[in-house]
Order: sequence, then structure tokens, then C-alpha cells
Amino acid sequence: MTAVEDVLRRVVEQLRPLQETLEKTEDVTSRLVQRLEDVFGRGLVSVEGSFAKGTMVRGREESDIFIHFRPGFPVDEACRRVVEEGVKAVVGVGGAYRLRYASHPYVEGFVDGIRVNIVPCYDAEYGRWITPVDRTPYHTAYVKKNLPPGGADHVRLLKAFLMNDNLYGAELKTRGFSGYVCELLIIRFGSFTSLLQAASKWRPPVVLGEGKPAPDTVLHLPDPVDPSRNTAAAISLTTLSNFILKSKLFLTKPSEDYFVGDTGLEDVVEERSFLGLVFSVPEQPPDVLWGELNHTVEGLARGLNGLGFTVLRYDRWAEEKTGVMVFELETNILPPVVLHRGPPVWSGNAERFIAEQMLKKMLLAPPWVSGDRLYSLLRRRHRDAAEALQHLIQSGQASVSKHLQPHLRNAKTYTNIASLMETLTGEGKHFLKEFVRTCPKYIATYISSLSTS
Amino acid sequence: MTAVEDVLRRVVEQLRPLQETLEKTEDVTSRLVQRLEDVFGRGLVSVEGSFAKGTMVRGREESDIFIHFRPGFPVDEACRRVVEEGVKAVVGVGGAYRLRYASHPYVEGFVDGIRVNIVPCYDAEYGRWITPVDRTPYHTAYVKKNLPPGGADHVRLLKAFLMNDNLYGAELKTRGFSGYVCELLIIRFGSFTSLLQAASKWRPPVVLGEGKPAPDTVLHLPDPVDPSRNTAAAISLTTLSNFILKSKLFLTKPSEDYFVGDTGLEDVVEERSFLGLVFSVPEQPPDVLWGELNHTVEGLARGLNGLGFTVLRYDRWAEEKTGVMVFELETNILPPVVLHRGPPVWSGNAERFIAEQMLKKMLLAPPWVSGDRLYSLLRRRHRDAAEALQHLIQSGQASVSKHLQPHLRNAKTYTNIASLMETLTGEGKHFLKEFVRTCPKYIATYISSLSTS
Repeated sequence: MTAVEDVLRRVVEQLRPLQETLEKTEDVTSRLVQRLEDVFGRGLVSVEGSFAKGTMVRGREESDIFIHFRPGFPVDEACRRVVEEGVKAVVGVGGAYRLRYASHPYVEGFVDGIRVNIVPCYDAEYGRWITPVDRTPYHTAYVKKNLPPGGADHVRLLKAFLMNDNLYGAELKTRGFSGYVCELLIIRFGSFTSLLQAASKWRPPVVLGEGKPAPDTVLHLPDPVDPSRNTAAAISLTTLSNFILKSKLFLTKPSEDYFVGDTGLEDVVEERSFLGLVFSVPEQPPDVLWGELNHTVEGLARGLNGLGFTVLRYDRWAEEKTGVMVFELETNILPPVVLHRGPPVWSGNAERFIAEQMLKKMLLAPPWVSGDRLYSLLRRRHRDAAEALQHLIQSGQASVSKHLQPHLRNAKTYTNIASLMETLTGEGKHFLKEFVRTCPKYIATYISSLSTS
Repeated sequence: MTAVEDVLRRVVEQLRPLQETLEKTEDVTSRLVQRLEDVFGRGLVSVEGSFAKGTMVRGREESDIFIHFRPGFPVDEACRRVVEEGVKAVVGVGGAYRLRYASHPYVEGFVDGIRVNIVPCYDAEYGRWITPVDRTPYHTAYVKKNLPPGGADHVRLLKAFLMNDNLYGAELKTRGFSGYVCELLIIRFGSFTSLLQAASKWRPPVVLGEGKPAPDTVLHLPDPVDPSRNTAAAISLTTLSNFILKSKLFLTKPSEDYFVGDTGLEDVVEERSFLGLVFSVPEQPPDVLWGELNHTVEGLARGLNGLGFTVLRYDRWAEEKTGVMVFELETNILPPVVLHRGPPVWSGNAERFIAEQMLKKMLLAPPWVSGDRLYSLLRRRHRDAAEALQHLIQSGQASVSKHLQPHLRNAKTYTNIASLMETLTGEGKHFLKEFVRTCPKYIATYISSLSTS
């Protein structure tokens, strides 16, 4: 047995759900299915997702119950009925619930410690999908049929491998691998190890399977159930690159720490410059919120760069009430001068440029010619990063999402990372610590293995 | 009479040499020609240059005496004889001399306050030139024949217009307009005003006359005496652009100050960052020295930019013993951190990059992945501009001319512009003041005219 297989054998034991949890999930699911079938009719309620496929990871047990409607039935009405009856069913078996929203509303129930999602879908004709989840029953069937014997363990290894570095999950918060992508990859490569061996040699864009990839595709993995759809479309280049590098490092120095480890690295914050923004978060469906957070943090980073700040890295995080954006800059204070590039001497604007410069309060040195162009030297308007960020937000000069705009206007800026750390708790604090550490866990694991070997 | 012509009429009076000076130049020249003809033979000594052409500017009077050799006569021997007999002749008429060197050695004499150059040349067949000055007698003849009546005054106006902003002179120190180029331009455009009207609409590259311009030409003005040669090859883009802009501004707000004026602008040095270098200068022919100064100041500016300093402007100056290079930077002190871009994750170097970073004393944050690439954060090695410049010089990392290298190794760096100013006198101080002022005199003149009109 190789070192890799030795590690995987030990890890996989910890990833399989406990028998007791499986039985409880089975029990809760069947009680709910029964209640829902009583309402919607026999054969119109199905169990889908990782529970149905047997690919659940311990600690992440949940059950997906789908209510099937016929095409033609109004979508609004379908959703309304599922919400209404789903809530009744969850309450009826003694559970708690909350309403969630992906592309459509659904019910999330908590029964005997088990999480259950009750979701509407359409028995759409193959290819004539009405809602995004209409493909799910086909996915369930495809995976059940094609996953090789023992394949579920490999899927679990892959999911855990991805989860430990925040590469798992197709939502905009993560831009990573969905459960279905994990299953397709194991079906395609036969085993976790074979996949990693292949991935360690990948160079993006990676094309697996037939069909022409869309222009900016980083991983092309067509859905066997709907070949025009790329199942991996959500994966960002950074996520895929982390997976490629992690595969290399794991195969070089296999260790359980790549699945469960944390890092022992000490952070250095001295001499580094951070800029944080803490704000209240509007209530919105997660993918809408995270889409806006992504768009906005990118817009602000671009804006800061445009004002002369060198943004080295940035990230964002949010929970129900609080959002955080954090930037690492080359410096928080820019030099007082800025070179102002004017028109070429041969353009019609040359004389006006000279006259305009002389009227500027910010002028530090009058225009001169270099090459064929006029230049002047101005006092910089925004030297301080926190002030510049506030300016970008208040002036509307940066590309900020509409819903976030009023919340950002009241945001608090931090340039002291310790003060920012103090204002955060739990997951937020964890997010910030990971940002300050810079390196993902798997690189920290690899680094530790270097010093011990 | 237009405002322009009114100004020119007044200026041109001040530019014509005084009758008394012309007579003295004539007298000194003919005495020298006689002595040299006695040695070299009748018909083998000629008078060339602006004195022969009648295009001298007051205060710049000088006479060029050429000794003609037949092709086949050894160049070394020709030079040796001209130096020997030239010195004798100057001393014989009671003058002082020094030996100078352009492409070949020549004698510079000072007789009764008149400067005389005694230069060897060959009566080469048209197009089969032996030394660069063999064309000069043809140039003299061409200009005498083609300059329109009164054209000498227009040449003087053009020369003075260029001189007042250091745009006159083809040598590497200036990269400007030669006297011959001035004459050709007046012949081509007929008058100073017509030339300026044309130039104010030029957009580089400017092609005047026949022939295919060389790739990086900024002004193409073929020599009527040798059409394959561009008489304007020495002119830099910045020089030509200054001439274009100055033409525009003069025509917009004509004033004598464009010919004789200085600037009343006050300099602002607060908040600006300068870096100066003072060194001893090796003895070399001027065009060799200025070529090396140009090459070296550009190499050091590139080197500073490469270390992260934003070089906004730079210039160089030298006299017999002392050289100065001066840079204006965005800042003299850079932030402590620097982003280090590593290889793509899919390259064979990814693992080695991680291991290497961890061994670095300068590491501030361990590697992470963004896009498909690894990055790390390092402590910057050279934060201080003066230290960085010394490092570039001492390490040989910047492109520095060989002859200057030992002199720069002992150079003194200045970041305080007032201290640098104190070490310089005369022309050197003037150079530094103009550098600090940034704008050329003609822009200052235009600016003054804006506030008074």
C-alpha cells in the first residue's frame, strides 16, 4: 500500500456518516415523504441529493425532498404550495423550519438534528427545463447508475479534500466544486487518486468531455444529463488552480492534514498595510448578496488602484447581519505628488492644458514636454487609503452594487488590523485570520511537511 | 504689420552682429587664412560656417577655417598637420588656443576676442565623404546660393528662438537643431513666420522632402548635398515637440520674451522628492561624454523604476570636472512590502517556489494562489532611493557606461535639493534650477502672458 493509499484509508473512515446518523436521516426523510405524498400524491415526492446517492460526508448529513409538478402548473403556485405544505410537514413531525431562497423559495427543516430541504421541481421533458433543479432527479439517477462500487468513498474523499480549503460549493460565496461535479469527476477518473494524478498535470483551461467550451471557461465538464450545460461553470480560475496545486502537493507529501488539518503558521502583520470595511448587510438571497459583494469588492479594489493604491489582495465575507471587505495594500499612505499626463503637443488641447494647469490649486510644478506630450505635477488628492475608500463610496465613483450602496455609506473603515479583528467574532474573525495568513491551509500543510522531512 | 511681425522686427535688430564685430571677425579670419595659405597652398584654405553664410547671431560670432586635403592623403597626417600649423598660425597672430576633438581633432583659437576653428577636411568626391565635415563646403555653397534675400535675418530669428530654450545644437548634449537645419528650414519655408505657422501644425514624425525616413525618425529633412543623409537625425522627439508647442504659443501670444526672456515663476520644492548624484567627469570628447551621460542616466532611471521607484523626470549635466544627474521621484521612500509574483500552479516550478519562499528571510506572508499563479509577500530590499541608487551603481545592475562607472562609484547622492543646489555653482546651479522649475522658459513666458492679458 502506498503512502497515499495509507492516508486515504485512514481518512475515509472518518468521512463515512455514522450508521446511527444514516438511520436517523432515513427515518426523518421517510416520515416527511409520507406526509408530503399524502398531500401531493404518490410518486410525486422523491428523495434526491447526496443522501439519495450515498455520497454524504459525516457532519454534513442532509436530505433533499423534491415535490414534482407537471409542466404547465404555474411556478408561483407550485412554490406557494411547497412552502405551505413543507412547513406543515416539518412542524407535523416535530421539527423547526426556516424559509430559504435559491432560484426559487424552498423550506429548510431541522428534525431530530437532521437538516432537510423541501424543494419544488418540474417533471420537465428532457432539455425543456423550467427551473434549475428540474435536472436534479436525472442527476441522482445518473450518479446512482454510474458510480463504480466503492465510488461513494472516493466522492467523500474529494469533497473533504475540497472542503478543508474552502473549494467546495458552487455558490458565488465560494465559486467552487458542487457535489455533482465531484461525483462526475470520480465517475470519469474511477478513483480519487486517479483524479488527483490527472489534476496535478492540468493546465487551465481544462476540457473534459465533448462540446465546445464557452470563451472564459476554466473547467469544462459537460452535464451527461444536458450536454449543453457546463457543470463546472461556477468554478473560478483561482479555485481550480488551488485544486491543481493541492493535488500536486498532496501526491508529493501525502498527509491526513490535507483533509482535516489546520495551520500552525504564525502570522506576520508588522510592516503590512490592511484596509477593512465593516458594514450592515441587506437581507437578500445568498447568491444575490454574494454576487453583489463580489462585484463591489472588485469595484472598490479597481477604484483604489485607480487612485494610485497598489491593491495586493482582497476578500469579502458576510453573515446574516455583518459584512466585511478587506484589502491588503502596498501602503496606506501614498506620496504627496502625482504625475499628470497631458495631451500631445500637436493636439488641439495643448494650449488649453497649460492654461488649465495654472488655475489648479493642486499644481506643484508647471507643464513641461517629454517625448511628444505635456505633463504637470500635481498634489495628490487622496493620500490616505481609508479616506480614499470613503471617497470612492460616498462619491459613487467606484462600481458598487445598488443594494449595498446605502449600507457601505455607513460603513466603518479600519486600517489597524488588530482593531478590525476585535470587532469580529466567530466565522468573521476566522475569515480575517485566514486573510491575514494569506496561504491556504494545504500550502501551510505542505510547508510543515517540508520542515519535518 | 501684425503683432508677430512687430515683435520680430524689434528682435531681429538685437540679433544681427555689430558692424564692428563683423569687421574684426573678417580681419582675424583673413590674417589666419593668409598664414595658412602660406603653409598649405593657395586655394586649399576656405572660410565656412555661419560667418561665411552671413547667418551668425550676435554674441555667438565665430569663424570656421577649413584646410582642404586630397583624398588619399592619410587622415592622421592631415590632422597632425592642421593641429601643428593651426596652433602656429593662432599664436602667430597673437591669439590663444586649445585643442578640441569632434570626430577628429581641431584647433580652437581666440584672437582679439573672436573665436576661430581651424579644421581639416577632404575635397572628397560628391558622396564619397572621408570625414563628416567634408560636406561642409558644399553646405556653405548651397546656403549662400539658396537663401532668399533677407533670409539671414530669418535664420537668426530661428536660431535665437531655439537657443532661448536650449533647443539649438545637434550635439548629444542638446539633441537639437543644427545651424544648417535652421538654414534649410528657412530656405524651405521662405520665412521665420511661415516656418512657425507650419510647425505649429506638425505632428511627429514630420517628413519634409523626398526619401524614405529611417524607422525612428522624428523629423526627416534630407541634405540637398547628400539626399541619403537626414540633416535632422540628431533631433530628439522632446526637442521637436518643444519646438512645435513653442511655435503654437508664440503665434498665439507673440512676445520678445520667447527670444530673450527668462522666467519669473517661483519654484515649489516642498512635497517633491529629488535624488541627485554628483561625480567627477572623465576627460573625453564632448559627444562621447554626453553619449555616456545620456546612456547612463537612462540606465539608472530604468534601474530605479525596476526597484519600484516611480521616476517622474530626470536630466543630466556636466562641465569640465563635475557631472550631475538628477531624478525627480514620486517618493524617496517606498513601502516596506513588495508583491512577489511566482510561477503558474501548473508549471513544474510551483512546488520549488513554495519551498524557496519559506527559506527567505525577507518573507512577510507565505505563498497563496490568485488566478492561476502563486504569489508571496516579501520585505522590500531597497526602500530608500539614495541607497537604491548606490546599490544600482555599486552592484553593476544598472546599465552604466564603462568610462563613467569608476566615477559614479565615488559619486555623492543627495535627496535634499537645497544641499545639492549649494554644492553647485554657475552653469551647474542654473541647470538644477531649470530642472526644479520643470517648465521650459517659453511655457513660463506663455503663462505670464495669460495672467497679464
